Amino acid sequence: MNVVIIGGVAAGAKAAAKIKRLLPDATVEIYTDDTHVSYSSCGLPYYIEGNFTDYRMLLVRSVEEFKNSGIDVYLNSRVDKILPQQHQILVTGEEEARLVKYDKLIIATGARPKIPEIKGIGDFNNIYTLRRIEDGIKIREKMLQSQHVTIIGSGFIGLELLEAFVKNGLKVDMIEHNNHIVSSLDDDMSEALKKRLEEVNTGLFNIITGEEVIEFSGEGNCANLVKTKSGLEIKTDMIIICIGIIPNSEIAKDAGIELGVTGAIKVNKIMETSAEDIYACGDCCEETHIVSGHPVWIPLGSTANKEGKCAALNAAGHYNVFEGVLGSIVSRCLNITVAKTGLSERLAKEAGYTPVSVVISKEDKVAYMPNAGDITLKVIADKVTGLLLGAQAIGSIGADKRINSLATALLAHMTVNSFKNNDLTYSPPYSTTIDPLLDAMAILCKKLTDHCE
Amino acid sequence: MNVVIIGGVAAGAKAAAKIKRLLPDATVEIYTDDTHVSYSSCGLPYYIEGNFTDYRMLLVRSVEEFKNSGIDVYLNSRVDKILPQQHQILVTGEEEARLVKYDKLIIATGARPKIPEIKGIGDFNNIYTLRRIEDGIKIREKMLQSQHVTIIGSGFIGLELLEAFVKNGLKVDMIEHNNHIVSSLDDDMSEALKKRLEEVNTGLFNIITGEEVIEFSGEGNCANLVKTKSGLEIKTDMIIICIGIIPNSEIAKDAGIELGVTGAIKVNKIMETSAEDIYACGDCCEETHIVSGHPVWIPLGSTANKEGKCAALNAAGHYNVFEGVLGSIVSRCLNITVAKTGLSERLAKEAGYTPVSVVISKEDKVAYMPNAGDITLKVIADKVTGLLLGAQAIGSIGADKRINSLATALLAHMTVNSFKNNDLTYSPPYSTTIDPLLDAMAILCKKLTDHCE
Repeated sequence: MNVVIIGGVAAGAKAAAKIKRLLPDATVEIYTDDTHVSYSSCGLPYYIEGNFTDYRMLLVRSVEEFKNSGIDVYLNSRVDKILPQQHQILVTGEEEARLVKYDKLIIATGARPKIPEIKGIGDFNNIYTLRRIEDGIKIREKMLQSQHVTIIGSGFIGLELLEAFVKNGLKVDMIEHNNHIVSSLDDDMSEALKKRLEEVNTGLFNIITGEEVIEFSGEGNCANLVKTKSGLEIKTDMIIICIGIIPNSEIAKDAGIELGVTGAIKVNKIMETSAEDIYACGDCCEETHIVSGHPVWIPLGSTANKEGKCAALNAAGHYNVFEGVLGSIVSRCLNITVAKTGLSERLAKEAGYTPVSVVISKEDKVAYMPNAGDITLKVIADKVTGLLLGAQAIGSIGADKRINSLATALLAHMTVNSFKNNDLTYSPPYSTTIDPLLDAMAILCKKLTDHCE
Repeated sequence: MNVVIIGGVAAGAKAAAKIKRLLPDATVEIYTDDTHVSYSSCGLPYYIEGNFTDYRMLLVRSVEEFKNSGIDVYLNSRVDKILPQQHQILVTGEEEARLVKYDKLIIATGARPKIPEIKGIGDFNNIYTLRRIEDGIKIREKMLQSQHVTIIGSGFIGLELLEAFVKNGLKVDMIEHNNHIVSSLDDDMSEALKKRLEEVNTGLFNIITGEEVIEFSGEGNCANLVKTKSGLEIKTDMIIICIGIIPNSEIAKDAGIELGVTGAIKVNKIMETSAEDIYACGDCCEETHIVSGHPVWIPLGSTANKEGKCAALNAAGHYNVFEGVLGSIVSRCLNITVAKTGLSERLAKEAGYTPVSVVISKEDKVAYMPNAGDITLKVIADKVTGLLLGAQAIGSIGADKRINSLATALLAHMTVNSFKNNDLTYSPPYSTTIDPLLDAMAILCKKLTDHCE
């Protein structure tokens, strides 16, 4: 039994380790065009920020550790072609190309940064994306010699980098072409986040929305001027592009493997692709949204781990189901927690629901306790059925864990009425007598009179 | 319409305010033998600790605020008798006794500290219990003049007071007659908690288990020696009794109102007692455990608020159901969080389940992040059905919120299998890629092969 895995960051690394434990006698090989394997790419902003100085802290398992457990890792080895009928892949290494046979193939090729078409983008070496370890190392090195950085895009990674740069004393201009930051939030919560960010802004950063970058210019290798459509000219030392990512699904498509409507690789609930003996997992593949039942592409490290494990179990002959995702995300920017789960109000409408929502702001613990923070919470439910659909939270530490209670409720397809008297823990250092979650439910109940006792 | 409420700390105060909003024309009266109304008794340990200096921070609504909203509060007014047939109560005020008519009566008499039979317990004025605001004031005053305190009992309130005294530099001996502290935890978690407490012990406190106090002695008004069965003699400046509480249900029993098996007042799911037009809510009444379906008595402020609201809605002619409780609790002792929900392994056995459990210890966030703490988590499930039954956690801030995700799962009667791939939020400052909750589920899955794919 020869199991071949393409890609080895999160899903691929997890799948390899699991397969080897399940089938100790199998040959397990990881091929990756990366220079590293099995690492926490989600930790890169914290490495850049300087929370730890050795990037090797990000490595989960080294090539040697894989080798010692009987797994061969081939770094810098690009897989150019999958031949499903022949059960072979074409690997192009640094020195030679070769064909490798597989009995089971697991595609875990991940995703790559989207690159916008902006004049000058290919001409300079101080324009970065953040995806791999070497990206993080380069960005940190350059940051330490810079005074100003321009971040193009305002998603979670952009905000995490904003924190990293500001905490290192750099000035930051963040430019977002949409009218709101963090497009996965509803506009009201996006505005609430922007307001909180402004409250902690000591003058080091500037978030510009509804603005399009049209040109990078500079002398020699360095872009030092960012021009926008409306005529802004921003002098800068370095530029980060983080406008999103796209799935590395082309290799599957070229092999005749079916892609989903999102452009990521389509898999069934046991992570099988349309091709025999080929599985996919992690950021390269599509998921099912547990609330809507629709196909979605929400690439996240936590999901990649689960999918890697599921793909390995099934490739090894077990039967294991991955039901799907809720799109639960948390991110920190300047000690503000932003978290969400389930459908936004906008996506709920698109999915055919009749969403009603509530936004409340409340202390996160009893106000007389020192360090009481606060939380702005949005909860969305369906007017027709009373079903909980999603939630978004902005606030202090603890906002994320409240979202996790709602993620659990979404997973169980709970209604507002069934959640409204949830016996959540209470003590003054931890929450208010009536937790913000329950206040939100009480207000939703009034909007859902047909579904609340 | 005349609504009379007996007791006004949490449930009674909540019920009064809600009734008045629902029925603005009703006469709403609160009678209480307390000197204060509508306050956070859960906050008393934090007042004693000195997190805030004005005890009035604990007041939720003042007598004047009640008066302004049309609610009359009678402090120091003991209700001695309920006459269900006559729809009257007998109130004994400071100057005169009188009979008060009601159309609807809400009993919210709360609970009172258990007093053990120990020689000398009634002879001294430095022996305290903590329940009401004046208790907190007296304990804080005495603490400020003391060097040593003896705490009898090791429940959550005892531990919160231990923190308060230790943070104020006092030496503490805590004496528990059981072999384990916090009897609502399983023994293994109780031991884990004790171990963590010892790790942060700088020599100021001593927890003695399996030891019975047999005598208090001293000169004049002050007990200054605590003697135990095994012969220990502890010199002390003040003594706190916190071995638990008992429901103030006698007044209901005397009126022929049915009590439950727990000794608290029996209510149906709309908070009605066995007597017509009489409701009960808060610490004086029994609840249904959502997991086991059994009657339980788990008196908590968060529950009291929900029950007060539910009783008010039904007394006002609406229909509102309170399904029951999970026994979710959180407490802090010396910055160690202790939280639980659902059934302990011991109670699960008593309830007829075949519990299997897992205890894991893990970082609460990615280890490379500064201030990564850790969490010891126990999750209990039923081997026969795979149902989740309960969980206990000890650890850093965040342990409580993880318990809340499990509380939500218990409320929805989820199985280990349905929870195991829960899409919980992940980011390095907030959790590990695979949250401790999911690690626990993965291990439980292996113990529940019949119920996990």
